[in-house]
Amino acid sequence: MLIVMKNNATSDQVAAVAAVIRSMGYTPQPVPGVQRTTICVLGNTGRVDSSQIEVMPGVWEVIHVTKPFKLVSREGKERTVVRVGGAAFGGEEFPVIAGPCAVEDRARFLEVACAVKEAGATVLRGGAYKPRTSPYAFQGLGEEGLRILAEAREKTGLPVCTEVMDTDTVELVSEYSDIVQIGARNMHNFSLLRRVGRQPKPVLLKRGLSATINELLMAAEYIVSEGNWNVILCERGIRTFEEQTRNTLDLSAIPIIHDLSHLPIIVDPSHASGRWDSVIPLARAAVAVGADGLIVEVHQNPAMALSDGPQSLKPEKFAGLMRDIRTIAASVGRKAGATF
Amino acid sequence: MLIVMKNNATSDQVAAVAAVIRSMGYTPQPVPGVQRTTICVLGNTGRVDSSQIEVMPGVWEVIHVTKPFKLVSREGKERTVVRVGGAAFGGEEFPVIAGPCAVEDRARFLEVACAVKEAGATVLRGGAYKPRTSPYAFQGLGEEGLRILAEAREKTGLPVCTEVMDTDTVELVSEYSDIVQIGARNMHNFSLLRRVGRQPKPVLLKRGLSATINELLMAAEYIVSEGNWNVILCERGIRTFEEQTRNTLDLSAIPIIHDLSHLPIIVDPSHASGRWDSVIPLARAAVAVGADGLIVEVHQNPAMALSDGPQSLKPEKFAGLMRDIRTIAASVGRKAGATF
Amino acid sequence: MLIVMKNNATSDQVAAVAAVIRSMGYTPQPVPGVQRTTICVLGNTGRVDSSQIEVMPGVWEVIHVTKPFKLVSREGKERTVVRVGGAAFGGEEFPVIAGPCAVEDRARFLEVACAVKEAGATVLRGGAYKPRTSPYAFQGLGEEGLRILAEAREKTGLPVCTEVMDTDTVELVSEYSDIVQIGARNMHNFSLLRRVGRQPKPVLLKRGLSATINELLMAAEYIVSEGNWNVILCERGIRTFEEQTRNTLDLSAIPIIHDLSHLPIIVDPSHASGRWDSVIPLARAAVAVGADGLIVEVHQNPAMALSDGPQSLKPEKFAGLMRDIRTIAASVGRKAGATF
Amino acid sequence: MLIVMKNNATSDQVAAVAAVIRSMGYTPQPVPGVQRTTICVLGNTGRVDSSQIEVMPGVWEVIHVTKPFKLVSREGKERTVVRVGGAAFGGEEFPVIAGPCAVEDRARFLEVACAVKEAGATVLRGGAYKPRTSPYAFQGLGEEGLRILAEAREKTGLPVCTEVMDTDTVELVSEYSDIVQIGARNMHNFSLLRRVGRQPKPVLLKRGLSATINELLMAAEYIVSEGNWNVILCERGIRTFEEQTRNTLDLSAIPIIHDLSHLPIIVDPSHASGRWDSVIPLARAAVAVGADGLIVEVHQNPAMALSDGPQSLKPEKFAGLMRDIRTIAASVGRKAGATF
Repeated sequence: MLIVMKNNATSDQVAAVAAVIRSMGYTPQPVPGVQRTTICVLGNTGRVDSSQIEVMPGVWEVIHVTKPFKLVSREGKERTVVRVGGAAFGGEEFPVIAGPCAVEDRARFLEVACAVKEAGATVLRGGAYKPRTSPYAFQGLGEEGLRILAEAREKTGLPVCTEVMDTDTVELVSEYSDIVQIGARNMHNFSLLRRVGRQPKPVLLKRGLSATINELLMAAEYIVSEGNWNVILCERGIRTFEEQTRNTLDLSAIPIIHDLSHLPIIVDPSHASGRWDSVIPLARAAVAVGADGLIVEVHQNPAMALSDGPQSLKPEKFAGLMRDIRTIAASVGRKAGATF
Repeated sequence: MLIVMKNNATSDQVAAVAAVIRSMGYTPQPVPGVQRTTICVLGNTGRVDSSQIEVMPGVWEVIHVTKPFKLVSREGKERTVVRVGGAAFGGEEFPVIAGPCAVEDRARFLEVACAVKEAGATVLRGGAYKPRTSPYAFQGLGEEGLRILAEAREKTGLPVCTEVMDTDTVELVSEYSDIVQIGARNMHNFSLLRRVGRQPKPVLLKRGLSATINELLMAAEYIVSEGNWNVILCERGIRTFEEQTRNTLDLSAIPIIHDLSHLPIIVDPSHASGRWDSVIPLARAAVAVGADGLIVEVHQNPAMALSDGPQSLKPEKFAGLMRDIRTIAASVGRKAGATF
Repeated sequence: MLIVMKNNATSDQVAAVAAVIRSMGYTPQPVPGVQRTTICVLGNTGRVDSSQIEVMPGVWEVIHVTKPFKLVSREGKERTVVRVGGAAFGGEEFPVIAGPCAVEDRARFLEVACAVKEAGATVLRGGAYKPRTSPYAFQGLGEEGLRILAEAREKTGLPVCTEVMDTDTVELVSEYSDIVQIGARNMHNFSLLRRVGRQPKPVLLKRGLSATINELLMAAEYIVSEGNWNVILCERGIRTFEEQTRNTLDLSAIPIIHDLSHLPIIVDPSHASGRWDSVIPLARAAVAVGADGLIVEVHQNPAMALSDGPQSLKPEKFAGLMRDIRTIAASVGRKAGATF
Repeated sequence: MLIVMKNNATSDQVAAVAAVIRSMGYTPQPVPGVQRTTICVLGNTGRVDSSQIEVMPGVWEVIHVTKPFKLVSREGKERTVVRVGGAAFGGEEFPVIAGPCAVEDRARFLEVACAVKEAGATVLRGGAYKPRTSPYAFQGLGEEGLRILAEAREKTGLPVCTEVMDTDTVELVSEYSDIVQIGARNMHNFSLLRRVGRQPKPVLLKRGLSATINELLMAAEYIVSEGNWNVILCERGIRTFEEQTRNTLDLSAIPIIHDLSHLPIIVDPSHASGRWDSVIPLARAAVAVGADGLIVEVHQNPAMALSDGPQSLKPEKFAGLMRDIRTIAASVGRKAGATF
């Protein structure tokens, strides 16, 4: 940590800051400059809580040189590969999670599950509990949805992934699902993060609507700090002023996160754009930028979907996308999907 | 609802959309234009779910003319006044909620409670459960903090306000606190919103880090739809590209919300700016823009605060602010604080 | 400047960075830490260009402790008061610039000029050259508009303010106008900034659509570095994800700019909100937050205005606003307008 | 255009709006609903200026169903292919513009020019006039830089591209350069847009720092409306709250722009990320998402570059990137670069 003093800071003010640093167990080293004095803090092994110092007289700015996360940091660690059934996130493969936004009906879900398996999907998705902006919108089938998911797993052999919305249902969802998903709106729900950190299934953690990369990694740190190291991060678009897309997919986050953390990061082009005709090009770009996988919405009849229809691909479009993905994945040294 | 067709839409496509509208129980009225046809939907009394139509061939854009919220909408309703102890939010008064970010210690909390009461605060604040970005930061005293809050209420006669972070603790917090607060990071935690909608205490609902005004009102709609009409909204800054402030306080939201909703809206200048020297001018501006109250952080010794020290006012600064508020409140036809 | 090395940086890498610092004429002082080494740069009197160092092997981050601007910095300087006719920006008074968005017609402009003077405005505004998003929208009357402005100054005795859009017309605008305005869309037009820095009239510099506070101050530095110290800054709203307002007025910028710079800063509530019914509360808030003045759009018949009608106040509304401003200005120790 | 009336609008208010529509030469068609009346405007062939109507009593919202741009709209037009020397933007090829940020020195520029040609670049770039945030930073060599560019064109046979910053130098830049570039900071400099619309060379138009897609297209409309149809659009990152990257590259803009406009759109990954190690993955993603080309910064010795060193690739890295691009381009049905 570095404490930059104001250019008119008195020597008494410098001494007072140095005293507080010593009281915290660290060593202050003042470095006088032409314009102002900077005090370096030596002896800390992690990030220092600077709030006491920031408000002291004569202090201009406190600068942290230690990142706030440690368990999820890449420094000194190998890349994590999260394995779920036959799928591996973070390795040489390029797994694809696919299925409808919500489980709406048993027969229809089993049908789409077979279709996405056929096309080469690696994991099956489908929401049983749906976070909806409006209290009047379809909220999911709940436990019945979980049972349908389990049946689809039996039928297709694919592992399943579904979202958990509150601490009350973590145990239930964890029992049925192979991957427990935390949605964007719950990325800062710290009670829920802690709770999924204490259950055994891998966690798919979506970036919040306006979360910074640092905050996404800190949310993962919450989960890992409870003992669950199997965390898959997911970029799904951030909120900007642009009005033509629901969110702005931040593909530049992928190389940055690979640089900062050992955790795998996948991309959700469906929620990012909100328009199915943008999903295919964005999915291709996600492969090319180096993402560790995709999560894509597929629905037999998007016009009749109870949620997020406009962003869902029909199964035949999805099959075409899987072919594109394989070609691009090969061109960046990766293998896509389950069937090859 | 209006459905704008593409300029090369066929008459079959127009007919297909009209058929879907009829199947939903509404009346389609096509309005042919020089460039394109628009289909008006007649007969709906609330917002229509448009997802089926958005993906139909020939459809260019679907435009909603009905706002998605109804219970919290101002149309046809009187302004809500939320009463807590002697305080009234949304009326002629200008109540001020004050206290430290977190309850850290019994003696210290009682001391600052008396100081803010002395200065004219209307409600006492203090966090027992703290949402923190880092799992390694101070997380609050939990139930012990709630007991200290209750003791401070006894001693000062002021009602208290504290945050609830998950559904598991709603009952406990509701028992101890006079106002139950939903923090910005939980504004989209729909399970929690529903749950506080079913307890009897007034709810202070903070705008999410990057929530639109519409989303804030929809979150309030979740609470009200469960039967609890005593919701106080709170603007606390939104996320932008500006780096000199923690968040950008969106004071333009105040007149907009007064126009759209009957609920009272207060301002939190402390979390918005993150710098105590900006809190005072922003608090003055909040009064002048027409907010229905303030929530301000006050701490005896900000340098030693376990959370959010840099944004806390010392009691004497707060007392000065209360004097400013009274003057400006009077100049916009309002009365500030409890003591006059 | 501080150079933070990676935690696995070699001593050769540290030495190489130190050598570059010495080659720039400064003194490197390495400060070894438990995790990593930081190199402080000593001996510089201004901001150091760090681009050479940022890309060297072993360098993790370069941190500047010197702000990039110097002439406009507050450090070591008195507040600037910009005087135009009888108006003073940055002192005890609270001047108000008012008038229609564009000069559309001689008779109508003279009429509104008299009305705003009557209500207490200090400076008259009106656009002769209009930056419009669409090439098909009204672009202003050009030199004829400047002549009408001059006539209005004769008639009312108020100084006038108008925008300049390109280097070709700076001389002409400077000849006619008492304040030369740089619009938000030209805040980064560096050729234009330099050019207005070499003409004698005070400059009103608007913050760009998504400019940071630092960038606004750097744009002012461009003007001042050419010799013109009479710069009035203007906050007019920034671009965010919020859709209910055209822009988000960033009132928190006012205390920050007062802290960083000696230049006066005024507020434009009309362009920020785009809705006349928000202009009045935001104008009140601007006074209370400590702004050094206002610029407000007034039009006799907003429904017939050729540009920005929806955000214009009618003269009688403006007169009411001036009364509010006086009351609030008095409550924060200021005097508003020309007539008292 | 549609005018949505308030739910308590009187029939007189509806009649008044209808009268204004008729006075504008269009036909009003009121469509009464359960909650409110909507008035459709019939008979317009382009976007209607709605400002008169927005402020009328009883009007709730005005909704445009006609896009504001027409010449650049895709509706009814073939895709534009912009040809410069042997390069074609918007067709089957994938051209790559490469070179240093600024022309700094004759010998060094000729050397890097040969290196990027060797690697397969299609067009040579280099700034002679540099827009810099600080007035104290290197501002470019001016006309001498233009002469060096011309010499490099002679030597390599590649066409050249350079930025123009003001109307005064358009003629000069247009004489020397094969493509005239408008930088992000000048995207809203309407005088400059008009001026480059009246010179004969193709224009490379960069998206502004926080410009919406609509605004980018409107800026292109300014150029095209003066007669110059050879406009190449460029996505270069937008401003968001994320702090780990300089800007957030908005690759979702590519399919949207292809949907809205016939103009080609290329991607600048160098300015978007500001970090050379992110440039390569983002360039790959740009090919995969369907962009019509790239513009990339290359410098022999980024550590000694006078501007934007940290984001420049060394020639050998660039050669590797060109190989990647060819593979991915082939996988999406495109041919990359000049040499094959």
